[in-house]
Amino acid sequence: MKNAVQNKYCSPEAIKRLALYLRGLKTLRGVNVKIISSEDITKILDVSACQFRKDLSFFGGFGKRGVGYEVDVLSREIERILGVNKNWPIALVGVGKLGGALLGFPGFSKFNLRILAAYDSDKKKIGKIVAGVKIEDVKKLKESIKEKKIKIGMICIPVERVQKVAEDMVRAGIKAMLNFAPVNININRKDVYISNMDMAAELESLIYFIK
Amino acid sequence: MKNAVQNKYCSPEAIKRLALYLRGLKTLRGVNVKIISSEDITKILDVSACQFRKDLSFFGGFGKRGVGYEVDVLSREIERILGVNKNWPIALVGVGKLGGALLGFPGFSKFNLRILAAYDSDKKKIGKIVAGVKIEDVKKLKESIKEKKIKIGMICIPVERVQKVAEDMVRAGIKAMLNFAPVNININRKDVYISNMDMAAELESLIYFIK
Repeated sequence: MKNAVQNKYCSPEAIKRLALYLRGLKTLRGVNVKIISSEDITKILDVSACQFRKDLSFFGGFGKRGVGYEVDVLSREIERILGVNKNWPIALVGVGKLGGALLGFPGFSKFNLRILAAYDSDKKKIGKIVAGVKIEDVKKLKESIKEKKIKIGMICIPVERVQKVAEDMVRAGIKAMLNFAPVNININRKDVYISNMDMAAELESLIYFIK
Repeated sequence: MKNAVQNKYCSPEAIKRLALYLRGLKTLRGVNVKIISSEDITKILDVSACQFRKDLSFFGGFGKRGVGYEVDVLSREIERILGVNKNWPIALVGVGKLGGALLGFPGFSKFNLRILAAYDSDKKKIGKIVAGVKIEDVKKLKESIKEKKIKIGMICIPVERVQKVAEDMVRAGIKAMLNFAPVNININRKDVYISNMDMAAELESLIYFIK
């Protein structure tokens, strides 16, 4: 196998696809599949063979001609490319219904993701432990995130407070954010990445295709 | 204003952007902004002016040269293009922590989206009312969705049951699905649209950019 070359011009879409490939590979690993043909893998991953090869070729070649892909090797390689082969702590702001559900979400730990800190403004919540995490006062967010050296944040608070909280998080050192509030965050920094998990917008775009 | 021409070859990405534009326009409407320049609007929406114009031009022209955009008119037009100017009922399968949070999620109703039916396999949950919705037995999902003529579904159940439930939903008439489980759904039908809200994959792709 060639050494994977990190190309920093890889598009966000391609990276997102790599993460989804990894998801599929982990499912295969779970049912003890060791080797898979490129035809089968693209069927399972619901991607065209050409797209799959193109995405992987960006980082070096991983398959063996006539043999296919070793599930274990390919998943480890994608983990390494994505940088998810080590633990990444996450800071969650807003422990309402959605935030609370995310705190206990079993889908994270499997992928070396762990919510290590949670913040809320509600005095009744502060100090409580939810899914093993002690809820802290949102007022202490900046110092706490800095101290814990957390780089990834999740925002689950009402729309009107999102911008201010996001700015505080960036000042504390957060470099990537998942925003669950249906509002755009304006952070004019090239080194900060924001991804909107806008469920209503996602539904709306689906409606366009079925209507 | 030209009549909006529906072009069915518009890409899913462009449609998703339209939904996000609508989000920003609704925020502006909420703070009583009536008219906005194309410069300001693209700054707020965090999109390049060229991209914004291109997306809109696909459906006809909406701005007035030298005046800008009427917030009200443009949001109504985008709502019409997306098809979200009428109510769309939603069926939710799985009323665990995440499903329960989605049931009460305030972000949906603002956008004419309403969870009208919810299903679970847990006998302790069946019959209970959560956020105004009575939880039904997942065994009756097919008949119930058919009867209610629901076209949109949300899946919040453990990975191993997702494929079977998704197939049942499609048989009952579901045409669009938001899947919150970290697994790919295989439905080989051109008239069914599936969108994965894979939070772990989203985080993983962010990690690539900050690592």
